[in-house]
Amino acid sequence: MSIRVGIMGYGNLGRGIECAIKQNPDMELKAVFTRRDPKTVTVLTDNVAVYSVGDILKFKDEIDVLMLCGGSATDLPTQTVEYAQYFNVVDSFDTHAKIPEHFENVNNAAKKGGKVAIISCGWDPGMFSLNRLYAAAVLPNGKDYTFWGKGVSQGHSDAIRRIEGVLDAKQYTIPLESALNAVRSGSNPELTARQKHLRECFVVAEENADKQRIEQEIKTMPNYFADYDTIVHFISKEELLREHSGIAHGGFVIRSGKTGWNNENNHIIEYSLKLDSNPEFTSSVLVACARAAVRFSNEGESGCKTMFDIPPAYLSALTAEQLRKNLL
Amino acid sequence: MSIRVGIMGYGNLGRGIECAIKQNPDMELKAVFTRRDPKTVTVLTDNVAVYSVGDILKFKDEIDVLMLCGGSATDLPTQTVEYAQYFNVVDSFDTHAKIPEHFENVNNAAKKGGKVAIISCGWDPGMFSLNRLYAAAVLPNGKDYTFWGKGVSQGHSDAIRRIEGVLDAKQYTIPLESALNAVRSGSNPELTARQKHLRECFVVAEENADKQRIEQEIKTMPNYFADYDTIVHFISKEELLREHSGIAHGGFVIRSGKTGWNNENNHIIEYSLKLDSNPEFTSSVLVACARAAVRFSNEGESGCKTMFDIPPAYLSALTAEQLRKNLL
Repeated sequence: MSIRVGIMGYGNLGRGIECAIKQNPDMELKAVFTRRDPKTVTVLTDNVAVYSVGDILKFKDEIDVLMLCGGSATDLPTQTVEYAQYFNVVDSFDTHAKIPEHFENVNNAAKKGGKVAIISCGWDPGMFSLNRLYAAAVLPNGKDYTFWGKGVSQGHSDAIRRIEGVLDAKQYTIPLESALNAVRSGSNPELTARQKHLRECFVVAEENADKQRIEQEIKTMPNYFADYDTIVHFISKEELLREHSGIAHGGFVIRSGKTGWNNENNHIIEYSLKLDSNPEFTSSVLVACARAAVRFSNEGESGCKTMFDIPPAYLSALTAEQLRKNLL
Repeated sequence: MSIRVGIMGYGNLGRGIECAIKQNPDMELKAVFTRRDPKTVTVLTDNVAVYSVGDILKFKDEIDVLMLCGGSATDLPTQTVEYAQYFNVVDSFDTHAKIPEHFENVNNAAKKGGKVAIISCGWDPGMFSLNRLYAAAVLPNGKDYTFWGKGVSQGHSDAIRRIEGVLDAKQYTIPLESALNAVRSGSNPELTARQKHLRECFVVAEENADKQRIEQEIKTMPNYFADYDTIVHFISKEELLREHSGIAHGGFVIRSGKTGWNNENNHIIEYSLKLDSNPEFTSSVLVACARAAVRFSNEGESGCKTMFDIPPAYLSALTAEQLRKNLL
């Protein structure tokens, strides 16, 4: 019997999950829930209906796992806690600093409901986190480095948009080849923020805006830009739409570590992603985690988990025998 | 209390495990067992004794996990089965085709003894297998490619040594940059063995040996060389020792896969290792797996497992809270 999946929220991530379900024959999209008027939302899958979020509890026995596709800032901190009482859930909560708090809240709710919640799935947190963990466990005497990009950072783009006189903006985070190569050399360099990433901004300004001031405000913005080399381009609304609507992203997790009685040997573990679509890749990770959530639940477990707690085999549709025979 | 580790077999792998234990403060080397005369074996760690393999059962209650450091051809198929009855064990069994059979045999023994056995740990099988599994689970509509090298293949070196007139030999497996780049482009190429790897051989021949015949025998050897482009160099015994005693290795696991309603987006997941010491890196993976074996055992589990069955957190000395806070 297939795994019956519900999608809560039909934006880029929700649509990505719908596409990923199509690629996984052991899964079936059961229903999509939205805060909008359901009549205004059309999904891609035949014979799947869109419901108002208010109707979701009627589906308690018809959905094996609910995919929470809201944002980390305001949606997930309440949504995941709310729905983990009634459904096995998967989310992509990605505010790293608040993960311990989110975990506690979701864990309490899921335990109360006897459900399984897997939080912070995706690629960072997610696949990148796994690679940091595996590499650190194998090479305890080492140092790891995470690089992001090239890709658009939503947070940095938003920060630029809040500046007076800015109509729209996109900010690319670009890993510096010199830093990547220094890390790959095994020299375990200490790298400043500026040495690791470059920030390139494409900004649409109001007609009579003071571009010099805007550029200055961007480049000196604390936390976001002040610690980086930042390039600012002013372009037209049309060019922004035409050239900078991409959703590609990616990055690198590299660990360099020593082994040997006198630490005489060096090793480099490198994991990298080059993604045409950030939301679709994230969704694909979430769908693999959905399979694990259902399996945990079928085994009688409850509470909150992360990808750190999932035996890798639980993510796969293949049996343990098939995995050992074909992939080990 | 630290995890008390025993080492069975003190070659490159056993020594590597001893070095790895030194880097893991939650572990302690308890004893080394050898088939040689224990008096002839000296270990690096202070106050650790070497015992004859015949004495091992006396340590049933003093060792939490026994690391089996024999070879896959003849040692492990019997050793792991034998000792899994009495100890939690970890091995690096790497004959891919025989893993299912080895798993069954070890599973029966470990279940009988109420112990946990983790087999086929290392990097391939091991970290590479994990990356094949994760990438396939996340991108089911894709194709994966494993490249090895540059590094010495023991099996291919041995095959050359069996040729008449050959005194010694080392064979390097070298991944072809053209193939790596074709895979990274996302074109999902069909690659022949010849297109993926080059084989370079350094051969010490007997004084009056017919080098042309030896070269011909190497290049046409079925399974090992016939399907590859092979370069053969004849060198002196001294040069082989001086220039080709390295134990570096590494490789790449790359998966390229599509997402999107019409498979319109491509993604590349790449994992690579660049290892100064193949046996020390392998040992480091085994030691992380030892931690998981003890944890499974403490939870009351028994039977055979592989890295596919280990929740990543079990490999780490950090607590679940620390992992979520620092690595997720």
